[in-house]
Amino acid sequence: MGGFYGARLQQAGFEVHFLLHSDVQYVREHGIVIEGANRQLILGRVNAHASVDTIPPCDVVIVALKTTRNDLLPHLLAKPLAPNGVVLMLQNGLGVEAEAAAVVGEDRVLGGLCFICANKIGPGRILHLDYGDVMLGEYRADGAPGGITPRLEAIAEDFRAAQVPTTCAEDLLRSRWKKLVWNIPYNALSVILRTTTDRLMQNPDARALVESVMREVIAAAAACGKTIEEAFVRKMLDDTDRMKPYKTSMMLDFEAGRPMEIEALYARPLAASQAAGFPAPMIETLMRQLRFLGDSS
Amino acid sequence: MGGFYGARLQQAGFEVHFLLHSDVQYVREHGIVIEGANRQLILGRVNAHASVDTIPPCDVVIVALKTTRNDLLPHLLAKPLAPNGVVLMLQNGLGVEAEAAAVVGEDRVLGGLCFICANKIGPGRILHLDYGDVMLGEYRADGAPGGITPRLEAIAEDFRAAQVPTTCAEDLLRSRWKKLVWNIPYNALSVILRTTTDRLMQNPDARALVESVMREVIAAAAACGKTIEEAFVRKMLDDTDRMKPYKTSMMLDFEAGRPMEIEALYARPLAASQAAGFPAPMIETLMRQLRFLGDSS
Repeated sequence: MGGFYGARLQQAGFEVHFLLHSDVQYVREHGIVIEGANRQLILGRVNAHASVDTIPPCDVVIVALKTTRNDLLPHLLAKPLAPNGVVLMLQNGLGVEAEAAAVVGEDRVLGGLCFICANKIGPGRILHLDYGDVMLGEYRADGAPGGITPRLEAIAEDFRAAQVPTTCAEDLLRSRWKKLVWNIPYNALSVILRTTTDRLMQNPDARALVESVMREVIAAAAACGKTIEEAFVRKMLDDTDRMKPYKTSMMLDFEAGRPMEIEALYARPLAASQAAGFPAPMIETLMRQLRFLGDSS
Repeated sequence: MGGFYGARLQQAGFEVHFLLHSDVQYVREHGIVIEGANRQLILGRVNAHASVDTIPPCDVVIVALKTTRNDLLPHLLAKPLAPNGVVLMLQNGLGVEAEAAAVVGEDRVLGGLCFICANKIGPGRILHLDYGDVMLGEYRADGAPGGITPRLEAIAEDFRAAQVPTTCAEDLLRSRWKKLVWNIPYNALSVILRTTTDRLMQNPDARALVESVMREVIAAAAACGKTIEEAFVRKMLDDTDRMKPYKTSMMLDFEAGRPMEIEALYARPLAASQAAGFPAPMIETLMRQLRFLGDSS
């Protein structure tokens, strides 16, 4: 995610600094390549950093880390953030802005969601399969809608200038729940059943289960005060039918033996739902199955 | 199951005829061996049949077939059943007596449950790992308790004479639901998570999920008018903690590429629960996951 959106922003003329935890030497020498269906974006030279210490103060710090490494945020955010800068949490799941807010303060945190099918296929090399839209929103610790502020619109404009279709969300937390309507069924079931999105859609039982889980996520969101229209289920199913066969990022993590984003994508939504009085038994089932598989792998 | 209990009955002096769908030639030549922890039961000569046509009329026809082959019942039951004989359905799940009753009539069907850990390990060779008790009950098409009849007691006595600890159930359908409290979580999760009972019990999330599923099965049973006490969950967990590491029969079927007993163990209990107004989302999740895995294997 960081490589993809950072490359687009740099291509549009913005000064971008990439912090890499691996591949830094390779990317310094060879830059970043985004392979798309009809286009290829090649950046021969990028500012690739191995440490936050060499990054100059930034107006916007985009966090595109896996949520499983959010324990690094105190270290990562303190230094590169300019005095009036903001942090943009480009991650999935719930509770990630709170983790950044604990470091830099609630009023300096924005959130973002990426609607994209893309996978890293090598050092500095990203395969862009489908979609690419971004949605941005203001964070509020109380979960209320943060509204669309000038600073939010300004960042959205920068993304648009970088040819990233970008919208602003009145209610970031509601948007996060909406994204979970897709993420919760497909990520978990692709790992648990060791399969791809297209095969889930083709099997009548997997498809019915995806739909039931989507409805449960909408019920969980409703319990938490975030209304998602029922028709959204149909739209998510249709969108996925049109997608190319896709291995979810969680399946790639699982196959590679990396930690899965169970906490942000399952445990926190489940805890929020149960605290609001809705037990969400399907989400609980998927979460516990994922944890077993993660612990056993 | 058929080999195990048939061998015990023959050993006790009863005339037993075994119908085998494979291994018949081997068993005719070598008999049946039951390997136990502390004892071995060797029957050098048994009546092994390749077809129902050679079986004489029997007072009790014990059906120990996988429920996935209950489509064979019309063919299997018509011939060997003596004019006053009864059919004993020694299978797991719901609805199996109804399948026999459709062939021989409601009043000639009994049901039974086996509490045993045993696996076939070769032709005519059975490994008896743990337990071995049997519970028998009268079938009633309306699901009401059938009570303990003289013919039920007589068959129970025969099993006891064969050193099989046997009890009679007032309410067969309630006993079937109780058995599902164990079968539904362990069979499904062992297949879906590709593991054994002991590893499920050692992992905190798998263990919590087993317990949640057990409580849902009890709620489903209650919706269907069959009350199972909450303390039964504790007993099932404790029993499983004491069991030797065990691959469930469904996991063995799955690994061997054989059909799994999804219909009798999941689809029928789920349909009964939903018809009674309780949605049973965890059972639905497990059923659909199993069906996907069964269709994909």
